[in-house]
Amino acid sequence: MNLIPEDKKIFIKDLKDHVGEQVQLECWMYNKRESGKISFLQLRDGSGFTQGVLEEKNVDAKVWKTSQDVTIESSVLVSGEVSKHPKKDEYEIQISDLEIIQLAEEYPIGKKDHGPEFLFENRDLYLRSKTPWAVLRIRNQVFLSITNFFYEEGFLRGDTPILQPTSCEDTTELFSVDYYGEPMYLSQSGQLYSEAAIMSFGKVYDFGPVFRAEKSKTRNHLSEFWMMDAEMAFYDQDMNEDLQERLVKRILKDALENCKLELEILERDTTVMEQCVAKPFKRMKHFEAKKELEEDGFSVDYNDDMTTEEEIALGNKYGIPVFIEDYPFEVKSFYMKSYEDDKGVKRARCADLIAPEEAREIIGGSQREDDYDVLLKELKERDYPVSDYEWYLNIRKYGSVPHAGFGIGMERMTRWISGVHHIRETIPFPRTTVLNRP
Amino acid sequence: MNLIPEDKKIFIKDLKDHVGEQVQLECWMYNKRESGKISFLQLRDGSGFTQGVLEEKNVDAKVWKTSQDVTIESSVLVSGEVSKHPKKDEYEIQISDLEIIQLAEEYPIGKKDHGPEFLFENRDLYLRSKTPWAVLRIRNQVFLSITNFFYEEGFLRGDTPILQPTSCEDTTELFSVDYYGEPMYLSQSGQLYSEAAIMSFGKVYDFGPVFRAEKSKTRNHLSEFWMMDAEMAFYDQDMNEDLQERLVKRILKDALENCKLELEILERDTTVMEQCVAKPFKRMKHFEAKKELEEDGFSVDYNDDMTTEEEIALGNKYGIPVFIEDYPFEVKSFYMKSYEDDKGVKRARCADLIAPEEAREIIGGSQREDDYDVLLKELKERDYPVSDYEWYLNIRKYGSVPHAGFGIGMERMTRWISGVHHIRETIPFPRTTVLNRP
Repeated sequence: MNLIPEDKKIFIKDLKDHVGEQVQLECWMYNKRESGKISFLQLRDGSGFTQGVLEEKNVDAKVWKTSQDVTIESSVLVSGEVSKHPKKDEYEIQISDLEIIQLAEEYPIGKKDHGPEFLFENRDLYLRSKTPWAVLRIRNQVFLSITNFFYEEGFLRGDTPILQPTSCEDTTELFSVDYYGEPMYLSQSGQLYSEAAIMSFGKVYDFGPVFRAEKSKTRNHLSEFWMMDAEMAFYDQDMNEDLQERLVKRILKDALENCKLELEILERDTTVMEQCVAKPFKRMKHFEAKKELEEDGFSVDYNDDMTTEEEIALGNKYGIPVFIEDYPFEVKSFYMKSYEDDKGVKRARCADLIAPEEAREIIGGSQREDDYDVLLKELKERDYPVSDYEWYLNIRKYGSVPHAGFGIGMERMTRWISGVHHIRETIPFPRTTVLNRP
Repeated sequence: MNLIPEDKKIFIKDLKDHVGEQVQLECWMYNKRESGKISFLQLRDGSGFTQGVLEEKNVDAKVWKTSQDVTIESSVLVSGEVSKHPKKDEYEIQISDLEIIQLAEEYPIGKKDHGPEFLFENRDLYLRSKTPWAVLRIRNQVFLSITNFFYEEGFLRGDTPILQPTSCEDTTELFSVDYYGEPMYLSQSGQLYSEAAIMSFGKVYDFGPVFRAEKSKTRNHLSEFWMMDAEMAFYDQDMNEDLQERLVKRILKDALENCKLELEILERDTTVMEQCVAKPFKRMKHFEAKKELEEDGFSVDYNDDMTTEEEIALGNKYGIPVFIEDYPFEVKSFYMKSYEDDKGVKRARCADLIAPEEAREIIGGSQREDDYDVLLKELKERDYPVSDYEWYLNIRKYGSVPHAGFGIGMERMTRWISGVHHIRETIPFPRTTVLNRP
């Protein structure tokens, strides 16, 4: 076949600019149905979906025959005139010519409802369905929003290493690699490296894959996922939360504006998202949150993390994201800045951001301990190998500054916006505890 | 200390907008020198570098004392008036107040020339020097240019998995991971996955870390580096090269415009880069290239890849990037589309892009084999485990289309623009055959 030259290619997303024109489209047969002497071909080209209409009386016998023979997922070259739906913002092609590029064998994903296992065993094909198409385009928009936001805020994107000689936090959930005879671990977070990098660049973020060898099969777990970690020099926890709120609002706003078709395909009710863009986020102390939950009938543990049910309840109650601040230090990481509250409880200057609509924790962040002696003492108390953290301690030895940071999970954020149930829908080729192919 | 609130923070890069004003800067002491009763403090804040000038007669005795005590790499809060250099585009601060945030211990990286080993063993600190600052900001610009380019060209960014059950090409240089009892390999390329993804999205790219367990210690090797792979449906090799040329020109143009200070710090002569933006790239067949090299005195092997010396010679000769097209198929990958030339040699529809200034191969790309039977035959001839490639073959079974793609190495591209010698300079925390800490 002859390909359409680059400068002559027209994409389905742009059909609105070609009403009344003859166009040629390179695309795939998404589906087809017939009604007597009329064929309706559902077409897709990666940029969008459209309908091609073909009437037997208006086309050559050969073209009509082709429309009868063409199978689902065949690649085709379609010629015809673009017309607009009289009432809706929809465009279709009155097909005058149809050429099969490659006739697809019988396509394994049919109209009948397949179980998720079948779909994910055939993820390479399932990607072509409308739901994955919409979800992964939303993921792409989240990536763009994050990239643009940090560019505008003056951050440097600094990639942190995947192969790390030590673990960031605990070592139980690490994948290990034989690195020329020495063990290395797949990154769980680039945070510690980014803390070193802000001493040169001021504000940095990384955005890459992280790994967790967690033998958990819930809808919330992936063994490989993408995480954005931001670190800011001369920053405290209040500034940190302000920045996070601006970022989350930006992501939501961009998705609402730029992913209308995708949200429509997913039948996403966007009322709450719109509310989250418009209203200030709620901020409350861990202690207050627990107290409120207790008043609402929960049997809470004031010294522990928030449970799944508690996060969902808070999200539902407020309908906007809620920063839960100042967790008990003992349930949080060694690097967080701490203080003693008026009841003598040691607390971390941190916040988890809980999103509504059961999206739960989408961000975790804190101010970092910037005092050398305090940090060293904490490493020793937790029995961490101090020599592995020598370079990390350097950050507090040579020009230490108050600094803070946070991490946002790409898949959690994408799931919230998409409204899909299982996290595996939000990444092109998910890795779960079951060995997935491809 | 009290931090300057976010909306009041002023950065060194913006001093030009504050000439004659009193400002406060949160920064680090990069260096200092004295001349009698005047102190010159070299300051940096991540956004740039400036000089603070302090005259004993103009400041409090306490401030003067602080300027005497402050050590290199201490964090400081500086107050003063911004002034412009009478002739140059340089700005400095007439310091009126100076507060030490944290007094740095004696800094290990001094003025004396350290060997690269020492600097990379202390990469967390070496990052603060001017060369890494400039190089990694150029890297950041390369990332932004690639991201913006593909956004404008209608691509979806689709992340491909790091943990892969099979290798993309050969298996000798793979890092393996124990994945819940089964072996998985760290990605060398996401290409095969992106080929599946274009069947849904039309044009996609990924951009993430890839790994090569190569026991090589040259200035060209990293065990972990970042690679961008793009794939396009309905694309042939000519369109592929056109796209690559547009992308490389865009990266160079953006760097020249947006990284002036960085290129100046690196003392980069940009004549050739400018030439590469202005002129069309050279395209020549592998056969022609070898013939020309032979005429220039090289003893060439017409059936083999280009050698390092040959790449350098071609780059030097033309002073613009050269596409070397249609390599002998036997030295290239199984997935490339092939044809037989008029001498009966089987050739790949591919091109490597050779950059001048000894930057060598910066892009490899090809049209992909889109015929099921031809691809299956090739897999069998190379003794690849066909069952592992079943999903990959699916791409040719259900609506196959002519398609092409290419990969560009982040570090190679950054090295070319920066003009630094060793590839390890171009990534924040390099991983080489020597186990690096951090």
